[in-house]
Amino acid sequence: MSASFARVAVLGLGLIGGSMLRAIRQTGLDVVGYDIDEATAAAASASGFPVAPTDEAALHGADLVVLAMPLPQVPDALRSLAPHLARNAVLTDVGTLKAPVLAAVSEFTPKARFVGGHPLAGTEESGWGTTDPLLFRDAPWTLTLEDDTDLEQWLRLAGLVCDLGAKPVPTTAAEQDTAVARVIGLPHVLAEALALTGLDGGPLGLSLAAGSYMSGSRVARTRPDLVATWCDDNPPLVDALDEVIARLSAARDELAAQRSVYDLAMAGYSARMNWEHRHFAPVELAADREALLAHGRGGGWVTAVLRDEDGVRLLGMRPIE
Amino acid sequence: MSASFARVAVLGLGLIGGSMLRAIRQTGLDVVGYDIDEATAAAASASGFPVAPTDEAALHGADLVVLAMPLPQVPDALRSLAPHLARNAVLTDVGTLKAPVLAAVSEFTPKARFVGGHPLAGTEESGWGTTDPLLFRDAPWTLTLEDDTDLEQWLRLAGLVCDLGAKPVPTTAAEQDTAVARVIGLPHVLAEALALTGLDGGPLGLSLAAGSYMSGSRVARTRPDLVATWCDDNPPLVDALDEVIARLSAARDELAAQRSVYDLAMAGYSARMNWEHRHFAPVELAADREALLAHGRGGGWVTAVLRDEDGVRLLGMRPIE
Repeated sequence: MSASFARVAVLGLGLIGGSMLRAIRQTGLDVVGYDIDEATAAAASASGFPVAPTDEAALHGADLVVLAMPLPQVPDALRSLAPHLARNAVLTDVGTLKAPVLAAVSEFTPKARFVGGHPLAGTEESGWGTTDPLLFRDAPWTLTLEDDTDLEQWLRLAGLVCDLGAKPVPTTAAEQDTAVARVIGLPHVLAEALALTGLDGGPLGLSLAAGSYMSGSRVARTRPDLVATWCDDNPPLVDALDEVIARLSAARDELAAQRSVYDLAMAGYSARMNWEHRHFAPVELAADREALLAHGRGGGWVTAVLRDEDGVRLLGMRPIE
Repeated sequence: MSASFARVAVLGLGLIGGSMLRAIRQTGLDVVGYDIDEATAAAASASGFPVAPTDEAALHGADLVVLAMPLPQVPDALRSLAPHLARNAVLTDVGTLKAPVLAAVSEFTPKARFVGGHPLAGTEESGWGTTDPLLFRDAPWTLTLEDDTDLEQWLRLAGLVCDLGAKPVPTTAAEQDTAVARVIGLPHVLAEALALTGLDGGPLGLSLAAGSYMSGSRVARTRPDLVATWCDDNPPLVDALDEVIARLSAARDELAAQRSVYDLAMAGYSARMNWEHRHFAPVELAADREALLAHGRGGGWVTAVLRDEDGVRLLGMRPIE
């Protein structure tokens, strides 16, 4: 079996799926797209990409199938493609939350060789017109490694993700969803609350809103149905919101008592600056599930999946002090 | 008396003051800088700008004096310069909050011809090295018009602000501080809380933090002491925080009950998009305090202060449906 894929089917050609179609073709692989929306399919086709008329046709000969439709459409898509999925095909997705996709796969395609994926490369834009083959350059890309994940298929997919310029992060669905609650769900909820509350004070405030309002509310420009799919059904987001509400309430009480937000500002500044100034070192990784999960949990990622006669060599980066 | 100024003294040469020094010189006016920090003064001087050795020397011959030091230093600066301020000099400042400056002016230089000013042009950077003569291009710049403000001096200063490419917004200290609580104080407190809470979940989250975390916490990169001067002592910020906490708590309860953040996301999206898509129309303004304040309160600004033999003509822009 080749480490690469013979043919990749990308189902759903919005920002992420469309950019994958472009990026995968740039690596030289055979790739075909499909979108349930006819206008989107026509736009991709007009840009010179092979687009199949049905999902069944897209799956023909595909040994990697990418579910790139919005999360709410995944169960229907799985039900529709289940009879046509080749036994040797690897199935992956690009959803922000991994537990709901894992549950849908268990229900509709329980025998599929599934590896959940999540490229952290979205913007507040969407649609074929915003696609970009360089979208994934340097982007973290979580790849789930559950008890029953086929490690060899995981490594094949990780190799492709590296070829797209991205950084495969080994994790479980549960661990990735907990992390995503804080760094995706939480920023979106805060941006929505700021967008609304910031502008609630009348037209003078509208004309004074500038830099800090603009960046703080940037992701409120995202389609609200997408924001909901990234936030809903993820219990760790409730915990993250509890923590942020406690911090805001403490700051509010300080101000009401004519004291200062300085302590919060100092702590926030330190957190952000420490994050920006992290350092990393290369590391050779064992092709072992627990070792890979520990690597991801510690903030590391995979940089290369190399193969020679002795087998697989895995290289990565990990944070250092 | 000329509509322009014979000589401008800028006291404090950080991002805002230093950029004003550069921008005002580009308009052709005589300008001199001063900074209490010797390294900053030396850097400005090395860049070819006249820098006075003392604030007293900077004030010599100045008919416009700009207080551009951090807000906590304003009272001391006023006490120091009070004996040297020319009777005909206009005094202004660049502080984010206007009520505290107004109070300090009333205490230390009660006879000064004071017009409070606030260019909404900061970034999260600071220091002479970050100064830029184009910093104020298209930036709103509040200019306070209290009961006892000299309207003629207000108009002179508004004319200079227009010459710097900025948009003078007529307002009172109280109204501007209320608006600023929502569009500056609130975004900063939220960014600090996000910076901290977002990264509190361990190293996996640090490596997944991307676009939405990055823009949401951008202004947490600001020096914490500056953030405190923009947030502390501004009671309307307590109200804004109460509102945002109520919205976040409602979203939290929706999620805990396995419902959706969709309603909040839709409302935030609409607020942000409506704000981006506002339209404006030109308008001729009366040089009258109440009319100007109504113009600012309604989201308008001044675009030109023109003078001919009949007196002053004031042009502006105002929001339209």
